[in-house]
Amino acid sequence: MPDFNPENSVGIVSPQTMHFEEPLALDCGRSLKDYHLTYESYGSLNKNRDNAILICHALSSDHHVAGYNSPDDKKPGWWETCIGPGKPIDSDRFFIVCSNNLGGCKGSTGPSSVDPETNKPYGPDFPIVTVKDWVRSQEVFRQKLGIKQWFAIVGGSLGGMQVIQWSIDYPDRLKHALVIAAAPKLSAQNIAFNEVARQAIMSDPDFHKGNYYAHNVSPKRGLMLARMLGHITYLSDDAMRQKFGRDMREGKINFGFDVNFEVESYLRYQGNAFVDRFDANTYLLMTKALDYFDPAADYNNSLAQAFKHVRARFLVISFTSDWRFSPARSKEIVKGLLDNYKPVTYVEIEANQGHDAFLMPIDDYIEIFSTYMNTIANEDGL
Amino acid sequence: MPDFNPENSVGIVSPQTMHFEEPLALDCGRSLKDYHLTYESYGSLNKNRDNAILICHALSSDHHVAGYNSPDDKKPGWWETCIGPGKPIDSDRFFIVCSNNLGGCKGSTGPSSVDPETNKPYGPDFPIVTVKDWVRSQEVFRQKLGIKQWFAIVGGSLGGMQVIQWSIDYPDRLKHALVIAAAPKLSAQNIAFNEVARQAIMSDPDFHKGNYYAHNVSPKRGLMLARMLGHITYLSDDAMRQKFGRDMREGKINFGFDVNFEVESYLRYQGNAFVDRFDANTYLLMTKALDYFDPAADYNNSLAQAFKHVRARFLVISFTSDWRFSPARSKEIVKGLLDNYKPVTYVEIEANQGHDAFLMPIDDYIEIFSTYMNTIANEDGL
Repeated sequence: MPDFNPENSVGIVSPQTMHFEEPLALDCGRSLKDYHLTYESYGSLNKNRDNAILICHALSSDHHVAGYNSPDDKKPGWWETCIGPGKPIDSDRFFIVCSNNLGGCKGSTGPSSVDPETNKPYGPDFPIVTVKDWVRSQEVFRQKLGIKQWFAIVGGSLGGMQVIQWSIDYPDRLKHALVIAAAPKLSAQNIAFNEVARQAIMSDPDFHKGNYYAHNVSPKRGLMLARMLGHITYLSDDAMRQKFGRDMREGKINFGFDVNFEVESYLRYQGNAFVDRFDANTYLLMTKALDYFDPAADYNNSLAQAFKHVRARFLVISFTSDWRFSPARSKEIVKGLLDNYKPVTYVEIEANQGHDAFLMPIDDYIEIFSTYMNTIANEDGL
Repeated sequence: MPDFNPENSVGIVSPQTMHFEEPLALDCGRSLKDYHLTYESYGSLNKNRDNAILICHALSSDHHVAGYNSPDDKKPGWWETCIGPGKPIDSDRFFIVCSNNLGGCKGSTGPSSVDPETNKPYGPDFPIVTVKDWVRSQEVFRQKLGIKQWFAIVGGSLGGMQVIQWSIDYPDRLKHALVIAAAPKLSAQNIAFNEVARQAIMSDPDFHKGNYYAHNVSPKRGLMLARMLGHITYLSDDAMRQKFGRDMREGKINFGFDVNFEVESYLRYQGNAFVDRFDANTYLLMTKALDYFDPAADYNNSLAQAFKHVRARFLVISFTSDWRFSPARSKEIVKGLLDNYKPVTYVEIEANQGHDAFLMPIDDYIEIFSTYMNTIANEDGL
């Protein structure tokens, strides 16, 4: 990650919060009476209000997509590689918005927020939210922002799924859909990994059935395991080989259970760092949203039918070594669109970084992403 | 799995135990003063004592390879598919032996055994054993059995690695080596999965630093997670799709954290069943043995050099959908042998069952395995 470099960044940014007092009906049958969304925005909305881009974030990330929240920040937002002046999503050209999803733990209403009815954190009583619910809440958000139509909605991984859902549920509200490293639904293997992560969290004695806030603890061991496991699926076997190989911390086998191989050290570090910045109940909700995502289910299990009324133009990007959501899964999305003669550009990037590639400064990826964005912006005279 | 069917099985078998009073020097620098190996055998040793086959077992299995320990047994041994009368390893023709590895929990000396020096279970004081240690212990076992040379040593997965180690360490003691669904060493990703499994066990509050026996508990939650995770790596994505797809237990989304998808139910069942029959300290040891296995490390990191003095003839079998130890990994073994002009037959079986394929009745596999065994037996007039 680059250091603080305001020349090449949106610079210092502050999150904002928008409050919603109209109840939001949720897929589970319940509704949220009162909620807020925390978001960041970069660049300026133009006079015609037609240069707005919505970014949808992935499982464990948030609204802080680019720039720094203070000059002391060690790290910029999670998509600094792709968002900023002169970058693929150019903040000199677009008004860029990203909101933390409902159920999140970075400002938007979620399980760690106080339930106004009980004056205690929602905890396990927070409803299980779906990608559709997120899109529904963002549609209200769009109205309040006074944006008639998003120029584009863009997301990677779970965020890419959210883009798909937007294009189906509110076809008139976005002109372009950019779906990166995503899939039209999880496979049994994807669900299996999520289930192990959930069991790790829920079987941690500090979980207290989700009411751990009241006990002043959190299921750190479980969340750490969930994160370690996640990291294995974010990297390719190849990337791990290049990054760690079988290198050993002390150069030799230690015949013990302390860290021996570098890859163990990496995973423990990643796991430990995560538990201090993420809420376990949110992690559970996000994995459920992933598992449940299946837009075709509402359309006789036909993705082609689901895409029938889509109006957005699509760019679908996949990465060769991504085994979490492989290129074959992206092609299912492409096929669903082509079955309806919908305009779609598909790009498969040669990259050995695995699923995480979508966050990385890979030349071909950045160039294609930039060219595509410039082309569609030029077409509209933005 | 077939039901009790003595017509097609070695039938009722009983494990035996062999005691060793000579100390066994271990790779870690320590030694076991006193130990025993539990084993089973099927078929009869012929007059020339040259029809003996040693089976090496995988991570979580044991010496009970074939047949039933009582007529009430619900399930036969773990390789019933391949071992028995008229099967690839024909008990009418061969004397077949399999011992539970040292460090195990099914009879051989391991962490749950009583340490004669303290009169308490070894627990975490049991030395970390390696594949080389297992081979060393089995070499003493061979001598006590009075077998000059194994006709063949055969194993799948971790067992296949043990076969490789035998062929390198005691080249004169085996005529044939059959290495199935194995690899010459673990990849960083393989180690990463093992590390998550270990952390799951060791972070369970019931682990008590490995001394859980004294507390009359066991780290069941952690061991269950480890097993669930293991199962994901044993099955292919394809096999999971065919087995479970996105089928739901109650036919619909339940908006809760109870079992929803069939694959969740399967994993929880497998995890729960395992904790009652396996010792967590043994699981830790077995994963370490896997991580440490790297015969080339003793030979300038050259597998070709490691194989230089090998005398066994090899059959190497891999399965197309095995992503734990993929065909590419088996080919590394083959290449190491070919670099030395050693005789090796390599077969890649088209199968979508993933790593577990080596345990399954796949027609091509069984036929090739049988033909190979019959051919080499005929050559020797067995």
